[in-house]
Amino acid sequence: MSRRMEGGRRQPAGESFPKDEPIEIIIPGEGCRLDAAVIKELEAALGPSRVLTSPQALLCYAVDATFHTGRPEAVILPESTAEVSAVMRIAARHGVPVTPRGAGTGLSGGSLPKGGIVLSMTRMNRIKEIDRKNLLAVVEPGVITAHLQQAAEAQGLFYPPDPGSSKVSTIGGNIAENAGGPRCFKYGVTRDYVLGLEVVLADGRILRTGGRTVKNVSGYDLTRLIVGSEGTLGIVTEATLRLIPKPETSQTVMAVYPRLEDAAETNAEIVARGVTPATLEIMDQMCLRVVENYLHIGLPVEAEAVLIIGVDGYREAVARQADVVAQICREKGASEVRVARTPEESEEVWRARRSISTAITQEKPTKIGEDVAVPPSRIPEMIRRLQYLREKTGLTMAIFGHVGDGNLHPNVVTDLRDQVEMAKVEEVLDEIARIALELGGTLTGEHGIGTLKAPYLEMEVGETGIDVMRRIKRALDPQGILNPGKMRLDD
Amino acid sequence: MSRRMEGGRRQPAGESFPKDEPIEIIIPGEGCRLDAAVIKELEAALGPSRVLTSPQALLCYAVDATFHTGRPEAVILPESTAEVSAVMRIAARHGVPVTPRGAGTGLSGGSLPKGGIVLSMTRMNRIKEIDRKNLLAVVEPGVITAHLQQAAEAQGLFYPPDPGSSKVSTIGGNIAENAGGPRCFKYGVTRDYVLGLEVVLADGRILRTGGRTVKNVSGYDLTRLIVGSEGTLGIVTEATLRLIPKPETSQTVMAVYPRLEDAAETNAEIVARGVTPATLEIMDQMCLRVVENYLHIGLPVEAEAVLIIGVDGYREAVARQADVVAQICREKGASEVRVARTPEESEEVWRARRSISTAITQEKPTKIGEDVAVPPSRIPEMIRRLQYLREKTGLTMAIFGHVGDGNLHPNVVTDLRDQVEMAKVEEVLDEIARIALELGGTLTGEHGIGTLKAPYLEMEVGETGIDVMRRIKRALDPQGILNPGKMRLDD
Repeated sequence: MSRRMEGGRRQPAGESFPKDEPIEIIIPGEGCRLDAAVIKELEAALGPSRVLTSPQALLCYAVDATFHTGRPEAVILPESTAEVSAVMRIAARHGVPVTPRGAGTGLSGGSLPKGGIVLSMTRMNRIKEIDRKNLLAVVEPGVITAHLQQAAEAQGLFYPPDPGSSKVSTIGGNIAENAGGPRCFKYGVTRDYVLGLEVVLADGRILRTGGRTVKNVSGYDLTRLIVGSEGTLGIVTEATLRLIPKPETSQTVMAVYPRLEDAAETNAEIVARGVTPATLEIMDQMCLRVVENYLHIGLPVEAEAVLIIGVDGYREAVARQADVVAQICREKGASEVRVARTPEESEEVWRARRSISTAITQEKPTKIGEDVAVPPSRIPEMIRRLQYLREKTGLTMAIFGHVGDGNLHPNVVTDLRDQVEMAKVEEVLDEIARIALELGGTLTGEHGIGTLKAPYLEMEVGETGIDVMRRIKRALDPQGILNPGKMRLDD
Repeated sequence: MSRRMEGGRRQPAGESFPKDEPIEIIIPGEGCRLDAAVIKELEAALGPSRVLTSPQALLCYAVDATFHTGRPEAVILPESTAEVSAVMRIAARHGVPVTPRGAGTGLSGGSLPKGGIVLSMTRMNRIKEIDRKNLLAVVEPGVITAHLQQAAEAQGLFYPPDPGSSKVSTIGGNIAENAGGPRCFKYGVTRDYVLGLEVVLADGRILRTGGRTVKNVSGYDLTRLIVGSEGTLGIVTEATLRLIPKPETSQTVMAVYPRLEDAAETNAEIVARGVTPATLEIMDQMCLRVVENYLHIGLPVEAEAVLIIGVDGYREAVARQADVVAQICREKGASEVRVARTPEESEEVWRARRSISTAITQEKPTKIGEDVAVPPSRIPEMIRRLQYLREKTGLTMAIFGHVGDGNLHPNVVTDLRDQVEMAKVEEVLDEIARIALELGGTLTGEHGIGTLKAPYLEMEVGETGIDVMRRIKRALDPQGILNPGKMRLDD
């Protein structure tokens, strides 16, 4: 599937770049190529200071956290729903593509423009309401996830979704990609916390979905149709989010495994014994080594795997769960089991896990964060096959992820300019997708399809699935101006 | 909104029937009016024994648990996905409406036919798989909800959704209406437990949505678009459902309140103190009286309200939660608080709650089970306004429901043949809908829109909401043959 790299390949095919040459950036110097009349209309609607067209500005919005890039013609900074609606009406009238964007931390290329307008939602960043009595928050899409989490916790409440990027990424982006994170095993994904949305449609009309109650079956579930739709069906301008009471306490178990299989079996046994950890993470040996290279904190680099298992809830129950988990780890062959009873001790355990993404990019500059999920019982096989691929190709691939819910992130690091290795990487990514589907899993557990996995989508959802998605896309965005190219539903 | 009764009104307008006259049934004697060629094709595809056209058979499928009725021309009993697909292909070719039906326990008219074919899914009732390792079940749509619950519990697992009809209703029906129940406060609704679906589309094609993992963001969330779509977008032929470990234990607190407001405030205080009960039910005085009339178990009929609060989870945590809840009830003015520590004691407490629906129909023959939900903090006001309506009209209306998640079921009992009272009932139902929306709530928390609430849908979702739903409906069912008349999206 050679289409994978279309969006991002910048070097002439077949040529290999020297390692010290900077990665070429795609924005040519000429700047905005949008019709001047369109720019004028946009400036009239929002004021010239919120319509950016300089080459420098366009450059900033041409990239996300993938190695793909896209080219915008203008960047708009709306501050209200009415302004988003005005922009969409102008865009619809002129047939100009619009790509909404949060913090640009996406790992599937979902916020990369394909010409047209980038609608940067970061100025719509108010937390409008934390309603303690009804356990909900009302926020604008540009609110940073961690800010919402902090605001909720200040009131004794809890917003569970916690993508790795939560300190930077926005709620709007989380909704667009239906973001997950380590806590999803127990608490579910972003979708499970969205009660209602305000959405600007392709033609500028404003749609309200859902409401302020957990139960609501009035008509089709448009809320969850929008969640995960990557901005291809509408622009989220407000979200009503469910909060829950903050768990009383938490503890973390860290277990070191000489044999990877034993770690994978521990996962299954914990589930079988009726424990539902809040988090259940794995790090393989390559993870341990790259993190140790980076942090020098004495990680057990000879171990084949480490599990980090967090339990939370009521005090007494947490202590017992942590003990049961530690016991299972020992039974299943862990050589060392440590129970972190306090938040400070837990934080220390988590530090290694949280550093993987940073540590791995110290090895090579281009990081590709895979995101497959398989039924948890297939995790051992998935990991074995990933290791086989790694050995076969000699690529640097750290394997970690949320094994509790079967979501693995094999992270390959390479160098975009190294054509020979990139070809190998592409083959490996193809193979990872195939294996995940073969094991009854999915292409993407929490990063989304975007541009990166668009070529594979049909493999998973089938011809009929693609057709139904395309019909829905056409029904809501007949001109195909909303975030074109994502999931390839507008081909 | 006089359209409410269209489907069900059988008596000449303005005429009042004597109480002892049987309710007229709508099926005329002539039987099936479908084209003989269509019947022949259906018989060829499934065998004549599974194509029912006698007036008696049609009669059986003309009613559900509402007072509305519908007229089928044929009833088909498919036994496989391939057969459902064959039926849909025939129906699509001839433009014949198809209404899927589970056990017919729906409370919004969602399974009432509007001519054409009733597709009775009850023969597709196999539990194909309980996968303990991956915490999931694969079932056919005709599986009775309680049967799945039992099969899960036999393996130490738990399927939380528990609509009142769970001993009779089917998973397919639960999915079509996104059914809820008392346990949703803690555990969520049917939607939250559907991982993947097999769906036969209007043209007979077979769509697979979702998969076997909790995390899956491959393309639009078609799974949740189908859940709650009342059979208007496709026929569910298989569901992959999420299970969770069975809670270790549970306890139930029953609290008697001289003043209704105190009960409502208890609700808010429990949430504020960070307790998440599995169930939090209210019964008002009229409930207590009708149940006592029926069961004679010594209920406190002088009390204004009773709360039934269930907590579950780990042993130690459950005992503490029950104690905290009991304490809050006392603080908030309960005159009597009883903690049922064992399943047997709990069962006794629940008996009264479970008997409401039966008890109330002893009073009058036509029961209309309302289903509004409001943000929990608005529950006191909602109840007060319901009581005012009841006093003003003199109607028999029992107020009960799942106050934890704000879902109230004011149940009006009346006599369909009493024109004068029915007019009053209709006004009250209109008013209840308006109040719920005014308080920031929804028309329907868990019963669905069906025919009963179709006239009100636009009041809640707005013109744009209706337009988007209609576009989706047309995109997936351009001929409008799937369950016509539901939600009025095919007008």
